[in-house]
Amino acid sequence: MHKIISIVRNRFLLITGILIVSQMLIQAAAPATWIWYPGDYEIWLGNKMNNRRTERGAFFPPFWKIDSHYVVVEFSKELDLSEPEEIEINVEGTYNIKLDGKLQFGMPDKFLLPAGKHQLNIKVWNQSAPPAIFVNGRTVKSDDSWRVTFEDKEWIDESGKASDTSATTYYRAGSGGFHSIDALPSAYRLAVTPLDVQTKELVNGGELYDFGRETIGFLQFEKLSGNGNMLIYYGESREEALDSAYCETLDKFSVNNGRVTDESVGLTYSITDSFTLENSKAFRYVYITKDEGVEYNGVSMLYEYKPEVYRGSFRSSDEELNRIWDVSAYTMHLTTREFFIDGIKRDRWVWSGDAYQSYLMNYYIFFDSQTVKNTIWLLGGKDPVTSHINTIMDYTFYWFMSIYDYYLFSGDRQFIAQIYPRMQSLMAYVLGRTNENGMVEGLAGDWVFVDWADGYMDKKGELSFEQVLFCRSLETMSLCAGLNDNEEDQAKYDRLAKELKEKLIPAFWSKDQQALVHNRLNNVQQPQITRYANMFAVFYDYLAPAQKQSVKQSVLLNDTIMKITTPYMRFYELEALCELGEHDLVMQEMKDYWGGMIGEGATSFWEKYNPEDRGAAHLAMYGRPYGKSLCHSWGASPIYLIGKYYLGIQPVKAGYGEFSIKPHLGGLKWMEGSVPTPEGEIKIRMDQKRISVTASAGAGYLYFSSKSTPKTTEGKIEKTDEGGYRIWIEAGEEVVVSYQF
Amino acid sequence: MHKIISIVRNRFLLITGILIVSQMLIQAAAPATWIWYPGDYEIWLGNKMNNRRTERGAFFPPFWKIDSHYVVVEFSKELDLSEPEEIEINVEGTYNIKLDGKLQFGMPDKFLLPAGKHQLNIKVWNQSAPPAIFVNGRTVKSDDSWRVTFEDKEWIDESGKASDTSATTYYRAGSGGFHSIDALPSAYRLAVTPLDVQTKELVNGGELYDFGRETIGFLQFEKLSGNGNMLIYYGESREEALDSAYCETLDKFSVNNGRVTDESVGLTYSITDSFTLENSKAFRYVYITKDEGVEYNGVSMLYEYKPEVYRGSFRSSDEELNRIWDVSAYTMHLTTREFFIDGIKRDRWVWSGDAYQSYLMNYYIFFDSQTVKNTIWLLGGKDPVTSHINTIMDYTFYWFMSIYDYYLFSGDRQFIAQIYPRMQSLMAYVLGRTNENGMVEGLAGDWVFVDWADGYMDKKGELSFEQVLFCRSLETMSLCAGLNDNEEDQAKYDRLAKELKEKLIPAFWSKDQQALVHNRLNNVQQPQITRYANMFAVFYDYLAPAQKQSVKQSVLLNDTIMKITTPYMRFYELEALCELGEHDLVMQEMKDYWGGMIGEGATSFWEKYNPEDRGAAHLAMYGRPYGKSLCHSWGASPIYLIGKYYLGIQPVKAGYGEFSIKPHLGGLKWMEGSVPTPEGEIKIRMDQKRISVTASAGAGYLYFSSKSTPKTTEGKIEKTDEGGYRIWIEAGEEVVVSYQF
Repeated sequence: MHKIISIVRNRFLLITGILIVSQMLIQAAAPATWIWYPGDYEIWLGNKMNNRRTERGAFFPPFWKIDSHYVVVEFSKELDLSEPEEIEINVEGTYNIKLDGKLQFGMPDKFLLPAGKHQLNIKVWNQSAPPAIFVNGRTVKSDDSWRVTFEDKEWIDESGKASDTSATTYYRAGSGGFHSIDALPSAYRLAVTPLDVQTKELVNGGELYDFGRETIGFLQFEKLSGNGNMLIYYGESREEALDSAYCETLDKFSVNNGRVTDESVGLTYSITDSFTLENSKAFRYVYITKDEGVEYNGVSMLYEYKPEVYRGSFRSSDEELNRIWDVSAYTMHLTTREFFIDGIKRDRWVWSGDAYQSYLMNYYIFFDSQTVKNTIWLLGGKDPVTSHINTIMDYTFYWFMSIYDYYLFSGDRQFIAQIYPRMQSLMAYVLGRTNENGMVEGLAGDWVFVDWADGYMDKKGELSFEQVLFCRSLETMSLCAGLNDNEEDQAKYDRLAKELKEKLIPAFWSKDQQALVHNRLNNVQQPQITRYANMFAVFYDYLAPAQKQSVKQSVLLNDTIMKITTPYMRFYELEALCELGEHDLVMQEMKDYWGGMIGEGATSFWEKYNPEDRGAAHLAMYGRPYGKSLCHSWGASPIYLIGKYYLGIQPVKAGYGEFSIKPHLGGLKWMEGSVPTPEGEIKIRMDQKRISVTASAGAGYLYFSSKSTPKTTEGKIEKTDEGGYRIWIEAGEEVVVSYQF
Repeated sequence: MHKIISIVRNRFLLITGILIVSQMLIQAAAPATWIWYPGDYEIWLGNKMNNRRTERGAFFPPFWKIDSHYVVVEFSKELDLSEPEEIEINVEGTYNIKLDGKLQFGMPDKFLLPAGKHQLNIKVWNQSAPPAIFVNGRTVKSDDSWRVTFEDKEWIDESGKASDTSATTYYRAGSGGFHSIDALPSAYRLAVTPLDVQTKELVNGGELYDFGRETIGFLQFEKLSGNGNMLIYYGESREEALDSAYCETLDKFSVNNGRVTDESVGLTYSITDSFTLENSKAFRYVYITKDEGVEYNGVSMLYEYKPEVYRGSFRSSDEELNRIWDVSAYTMHLTTREFFIDGIKRDRWVWSGDAYQSYLMNYYIFFDSQTVKNTIWLLGGKDPVTSHINTIMDYTFYWFMSIYDYYLFSGDRQFIAQIYPRMQSLMAYVLGRTNENGMVEGLAGDWVFVDWADGYMDKKGELSFEQVLFCRSLETMSLCAGLNDNEEDQAKYDRLAKELKEKLIPAFWSKDQQALVHNRLNNVQQPQITRYANMFAVFYDYLAPAQKQSVKQSVLLNDTIMKITTPYMRFYELEALCELGEHDLVMQEMKDYWGGMIGEGATSFWEKYNPEDRGAAHLAMYGRPYGKSLCHSWGASPIYLIGKYYLGIQPVKAGYGEFSIKPHLGGLKWMEGSVPTPEGEIKIRMDQKRISVTASAGAGYLYFSSKSTPKTTEGKIEKTDEGGYRIWIEAGEEVVVSYQF
């Protein structure tokens, strides 16, 4: 039996081997791609994203430093050609070509490279969009093996020759999947598809349109004509759309004999058969009032979206949970745009803390690595670092952690190499702001956020929460330095992390309260306990086992501790409870909390939800009646919780080279689903008698418990030290285990 | 008599007083001006300037880091209005308006401000050109009293209100003399005026056009028609224009039935009656070859220039010297463009060492403060500092010195306040690269330039020249810190300057050679003596009087020391000799050296001139037959030498609040001239019997010597300790002194 299994395994290993070889062949013939200075395109595109927000017709950019691309950049490639080769060239910008240091005439779109060893350089100037090049020949193709610099330190020296110096700072070029010579990166747009109104209603002389669920895109008017003004009020809720004085977004148009003027930007357009608005808005409802002279035949919209494959999936015996997963997936898709943004109505900005959760959810549904990288580049910004990311101290720390996470899920080591200089800059900024204890506290200009809370939270002094994130960030620096073979940095950050970790628990652990206190002022523990540091310390394993159990009782399951009312921090709270084995409890919490939003009519998940609120109070935030975002990425965390803690799948080695599967029914009769991996997916089905698993790549253990001796058709079940069982899973085989629930 | 003079003086004081009062009134009603983040427009415009260079049809940008503007900037002004006031608004970019923190609808071009105390904010995003605003109301006008930030650290806090923090970094807005609401700063262009060909000649089947002297601008073809190719070869010399294989700049056009394509950029234009080329070129000669099918009626050009008033003037009994002054002035005018550039053919770049001399010449002819400030901003760049300015160590030091010089000549203290943060950044970079002696030496990536020399010059180790400039830069930092009331920095840089100065002369002074040696390697003096450090140490007064006299003999007047062959370093060499009283010698040197270039046919002064070269060797440089620039700003130094050391005029206190006049005939029979000051000019005429002086503002001493007791019509002549005479000059009075030569 074992032998047969081995044969089966070998067959799959063979297939895997063929896949790897064919992948290598594909890589050798990898297509040319548009390349740029690493991060430049992402930062430039991010400026477009972040500057798309409006509030009641006013342009509303972010309030942190907005970086920009290097406007002059040089690309370089060493060539060794067996025969002459003509290359096609396209460039975003004004450019020159140097062959072996000699400038060539003009800006040719074709160029004949001679045989032999040569150095090809292309230098580009572009003020308004990132300098980018596309080169395509039989063997010479622009890709991330090209070098790039913004200051090549080359000059005509005394001898009259061009010379390079060792001080030249070259990086590998950045790229982002643009493989056509005509697909200019600066022309990139999301996809659109038409969407119809579900219902129309006349209210107070205006027309209220309902698109059936939360959506985003460009409103369209068919056969718009006549003369007069038209006002459009958008609502994520019916209440918001109908409240012309307080709705968060609106448009004003004046229609005039075949022309329409957008009053907020002062631009006039000619009306063709249908008129599509220039700026996207997020809404479910649209309320339109107009002068009598204005006419149109109908309203529809172009739904704007990032094309994504739903590689992760989930179904179970619980229809409410299935609905929670579906609404989470839709929320996630709406907020997955050029970047992972916070919310589609507001802020439409890239926030590091929000994005950090999007990355983790993304690994369990789209596995869209490009958008992860885009977002990390944008948030990393450019030197000099003059404030925390988004001005928020905690958001800087999430950024560090997101990078190693990305490596763990994707195995993409080249990205770690490219982003590492940004990590060094950001960490130097952080280390330059520590106090005499080597801890961080909010200095002038720092926003110490933690969470939106419906109660008092002190932000002064040393917050235990910030130290936990800081410590984890130092550990991340050390890990990434190691991946880059930077032993000096690896040792330095390892030492700093250890020093901080040694101080951390003694500094904040209260024996009386059996929990980490919220903060210290002048080295004195303050009495408040909050959930934040405690739950992070649980899943970062910073607490001793007994302390973890204490925290569970004294904090996590203690209703007198200030409750969390954002899905944002519920993410970590429920994660901590899962780490403590409270799967049944967390399942009920998910159903209550996210199910509660659905019960309130949510078609996407919200920025904040307090089950104790009633009616329109659910819509208010920031002192504004419709200030709350009803489609907020951090609302989608069930995707992550279900994938990681119920389907139970996570990477153990980078890129799922090794995985672990620890499924938990959490009270369900059955569940089934899949989790994407870089090279395929892991599928699992579990009921109270059987678990079946298939992984298309990688290998790893399936862990489970059973009241009686389990059986399997393939492989060998081992007992674990913890009293459970495990079985090793190889790629390609379906393993079915029979067990007793 | 004395009393009468006093009355006369009081009359002028009265007039001066009225002028001051009226100037204040004018300032109160100062016009609105376009404003931007300080330095942003200058850096953006500088990118256009620096990227205008071509070499044989190839785009040729600089090889140092090219900075860019902040793409999102917020402007702010505190208002206190007695009545409501409507403002006109124009903005370069997408913008919003906030009144007292509340966003206003749209992007209005008119806005009604309510009476009372209010805060007006305008936030602008512009990726391709610097965010800039123009606001004009009855009393509210955009000017440099507005604040500006690129990271206002404002956010919606927990209470839901917008809040400012003390960490907000605001600066006073930058401006540049754009006073019309329609004069978009990004649309700025130099002036043009038509210029005709002087002679036309047929050579080898092509046409050679001579414009009579060095010029710059856009070639024009009248009634260009037909079909075929046209090649245009530009020459600063006849030889260059006729050498199609080696001329430095050229154009290729193809003409096709009413359209013409620029082959270097691939752009096609429709031909109207006359066709003007898109890119300016520098030339005296143009050689054109074309296919038979191409026809045109005539060639002319649009001369492109910065409008300047020739406020400085000079005439003397020596016609050759007058011609030298005129050609210097023309050279200076050609290279005074949006910025002070090095040369109009090449590099067309802004180089700090070159610009430093242009500033000093400029003070004696145009007194164009705007172009000085533009150039200093551009060179100062943006954080982070990643290399020396233009990559050249010495060029960073000239930049520091240029700033205090500008203050001394202009009295513009606000500029010192605005640029000081850049000075701190640059000096931090320099101090981060000093060795264990606190001295600078060339590290990886540093270009240690000093000068182009026709002989060996060691660039390794500690160069005395670089330490002299470094020391002077530290002194400048201390002075500017003091002007900004930054006592901490003032003391710090003063201490650093003193520490370096104490080491300087002992480290490099050779008792044997009675001069500063060129360099030290591993703390050991090397034997070579060059002129550079020695001449700077003379006019910076770093040497004891006896040492100065030694240096004069052992170095400056010693023909065995490697000769200087660039006007660039001749500038300082002759300045040092003037400081040592060698006016007659320097006059002869000027006539020989610059007169020598005129003798070779120069219509503008050159980048380099070795009188020992013959024929076309004068045109070659950098290993290229026409590599040399024949119109190079550093060639124009006679303007400075004559103004400062013969007319003898210089500021003693900032902005010519006090001046000194020490005229020297230097062998001339007579001379007369004027030197501009911020508020007017100082005129002087001197022959061998009389000196007459008038200053329209400020006051100061006229110093002179006389073999017998001098006489004057006004004022009191005093004897000086040095055995000469002096007389105090007040603004507005003409003082005439009779003396014996």
